[in-house]
Amino acid sequence: MSQTLPGTIPASLFEACADSIAETARELAALGWTPATSSNFSMRVDADHAAITVSGRHKGRLGREDIMLIDLDGHAVGTDARPSAETALHTQIYRRWPHMGAVLHTHSRTQSVASRLFASDGVIRLQGWELQKAITGYLTHESTLEIPVFPNTQHMPDLVAQVDAWLDAGKPLHAYLIDGHGIYTWGRDMAETQRHLEALEFLLGCELDLRKLRAS
Amino acid sequence: MSQTLPGTIPASLFEACADSIAETARELAALGWTPATSSNFSMRVDADHAAITVSGRHKGRLGREDIMLIDLDGHAVGTDARPSAETALHTQIYRRWPHMGAVLHTHSRTQSVASRLFASDGVIRLQGWELQKAITGYLTHESTLEIPVFPNTQHMPDLVAQVDAWLDAGKPLHAYLIDGHGIYTWGRDMAETQRHLEALEFLLGCELDLRKLRAS
Amino acid sequence: MSQTLPGTIPASLFEACADSIAETARELAALGWTPATSSNFSMRVDADHAAITVSGRHKGRLGREDIMLIDLDGHAVGTDARPSAETALHTQIYRRWPHMGAVLHTHSRTQSVASRLFASDGVIRLQGWELQKAITGYLTHESTLEIPVFPNTQHMPDLVAQVDAWLDAGKPLHAYLIDGHGIYTWGRDMAETQRHLEALEFLLGCELDLRKLRAS
Amino acid sequence: MSQTLPGTIPASLFEACADSIAETARELAALGWTPATSSNFSMRVDADHAAITVSGRHKGRLGREDIMLIDLDGHAVGTDARPSAETALHTQIYRRWPHMGAVLHTHSRTQSVASRLFASDGVIRLQGWELQKAITGYLTHESTLEIPVFPNTQHMPDLVAQVDAWLDAGKPLHAYLIDGHGIYTWGRDMAETQRHLEALEFLLGCELDLRKLRAS
Repeated sequence: MSQTLPGTIPASLFEACADSIAETARELAALGWTPATSSNFSMRVDADHAAITVSGRHKGRLGREDIMLIDLDGHAVGTDARPSAETALHTQIYRRWPHMGAVLHTHSRTQSVASRLFASDGVIRLQGWELQKAITGYLTHESTLEIPVFPNTQHMPDLVAQVDAWLDAGKPLHAYLIDGHGIYTWGRDMAETQRHLEALEFLLGCELDLRKLRAS
Repeated sequence: MSQTLPGTIPASLFEACADSIAETARELAALGWTPATSSNFSMRVDADHAAITVSGRHKGRLGREDIMLIDLDGHAVGTDARPSAETALHTQIYRRWPHMGAVLHTHSRTQSVASRLFASDGVIRLQGWELQKAITGYLTHESTLEIPVFPNTQHMPDLVAQVDAWLDAGKPLHAYLIDGHGIYTWGRDMAETQRHLEALEFLLGCELDLRKLRAS
Repeated sequence: MSQTLPGTIPASLFEACADSIAETARELAALGWTPATSSNFSMRVDADHAAITVSGRHKGRLGREDIMLIDLDGHAVGTDARPSAETALHTQIYRRWPHMGAVLHTHSRTQSVASRLFASDGVIRLQGWELQKAITGYLTHESTLEIPVFPNTQHMPDLVAQVDAWLDAGKPLHAYLIDGHGIYTWGRDMAETQRHLEALEFLLGCELDLRKLRAS
Repeated sequence: MSQTLPGTIPASLFEACADSIAETARELAALGWTPATSSNFSMRVDADHAAITVSGRHKGRLGREDIMLIDLDGHAVGTDARPSAETALHTQIYRRWPHMGAVLHTHSRTQSVASRLFASDGVIRLQGWELQKAITGYLTHESTLEIPVFPNTQHMPDLVAQVDAWLDAGKPLHAYLIDGHGIYTWGRDMAETQRHLEALEFLLGCELDLRKLRAS
């Protein structure tokens, strides 16, 4: 892939973002959360651009050539590469929140199963777990953390509209699941976003385990 | 093992296939999908030959000497080594589909358990999972992916006949399970085949988890 | 982080403790027991001081600069760094038992789920497992190992009081769970403490599995 | 540890056995089958001696100094080290079967849970799994593989007597479980024994999974 950068973006800035995405992707792939070339990752480069994974690559073996520049309408910038089909879900976050710096979408078995199980409720409510405090803004296990589960669709504008509707209703949102699919979460930088993702995977896994055991 | 190649097959071609098989095998062994020297792997070399794992080796430690050449009737070519007992299931794929380039057979706990659970149905039907799209030809989670489960037998021609019967009935086939045993899947090249295998393992695992949880 | 040591503590002693904590933390992080910067670890330095993890760091990547000195009232010594919020639970152990040399607090999925499941009982009773013998003082699987489960609170003195009450009642205590949270365990040195933690994680996992299976 | 060898045993022979035990132990420890310094491993050195793990060491970090020589009555030879408490269960195998060359005893969660679940039956019967063929002498999935589950005791002669009683009744034996404890298996050499262990862990795991799912 050949990537030509706009004059306002130094190569070192783009490369730092690409390297951060690739390193995070390797860690998440090693955990088994990106099966069969699924999942996509992005990082804000400046007010108007983000770096995002090129569609269809193995997430455990990303190099700089697997990361491309897009504008916040999701168009490729300075490259013929095709960004992930779900790019619009990344740019939506960057457009709505200027302080958000990274978006991670993964596809673990726990995430996929939880999304199916709670799809008819449309939401998963987490309460009583100390690790809720790993989500920025949550100060106690006594809070309730709501994760919406949106219906899956191959038509991205419908998903974008569902996320907008949730936010326009004034409800807090730190992550969402798509039914049968996976999770989206974000944060101010890659470290915070990765912490959110680890916490959410852990909390969903605990909820599923507890549900199996309480039925026993 | 000593391997003499026909004049039409350059050593570099055979070695590239052998190395690809060995590398894939190491990855699958590390995932625990090849317990106790089980599983076998092959790759098409040309229109009339394939490279396949020698019987009974530890799949995490394969070298070139653990891969042998066969013709598409399953006979050893240029070697005294014994190919896998299930060679006929590999050559069947290469004979029916000239564009198929690799076959992977593994033996994960998820695959074995799913095969037992769905053996009486004779088929597993997967619906509503985004990752179905990782199987070539599937464009939406709204499709149905059918994986037949054939009865196990130590008599390979019976298994070959079951696969032929399914295909002769005009049904699509991207993979099949054998009861109490494991999975077979294939693709145009090793990367596509490995993507299929990862997706199928993931989907079977999700189905089993969901079944446990829905009973709760 | 800048750490100034009291004259009575040689740098080599503090560094040996810090390195032991960091190495143990890497092993526990690799097991997935410290998700999302959770968990904290400490080691006694002398009669009046301990080394403890600085709050909020990724436990798989600790260096010496992520470990700080505290006195046994939990105050930072010779540094501006902030110790873990749960420091009081570590110093309580060192104050009550002069021969205890290390405290580990982790946050595995098994520990968190077990704590929720047994919270209403207030205790988990382990019987009939050979691995109970890995806890110092237990010589046979015929003994009963009791692990209390205390209610969670963000107010540390309440937790300290609960632990004190258990001990003041004369009951043996080698570890405790906090509801929705994780486990605390300790020992004479880091090796014994790590052995206790591994054994407890194993035993809790076995209990949960057996409960799922016996309900089947 | 200082090990003095009898004149009939070359250092290179003992060292080869010790290295083989240590390497196998590292692999099994990495799988989590040897929690909290549990498990023990041995290898026949000659007609009258075996090499066995010294009691209480961390099985992921064994060196030659953690392996000692014993005679087939279980007495230390040429060393003051203390062999594993369960040495009598190893020497029993070597005494009864001159062609057996290695014994592995591990302690995985699956093994421990299965032993508790089937303790009242006294036996686990495995049928219909292709991987039964990984046990030497089993040629088809249609066979039945019986694994006895003996009551646990801290008195080794009682366990030895239970194993003898099973064998004296003329029943085949390739492995046994001890209730709440773990598994023992053996083979002609280390590779065969490790293959048996991997197959048994896999089969027990499949049985437990299937039991959970069939109850759903």
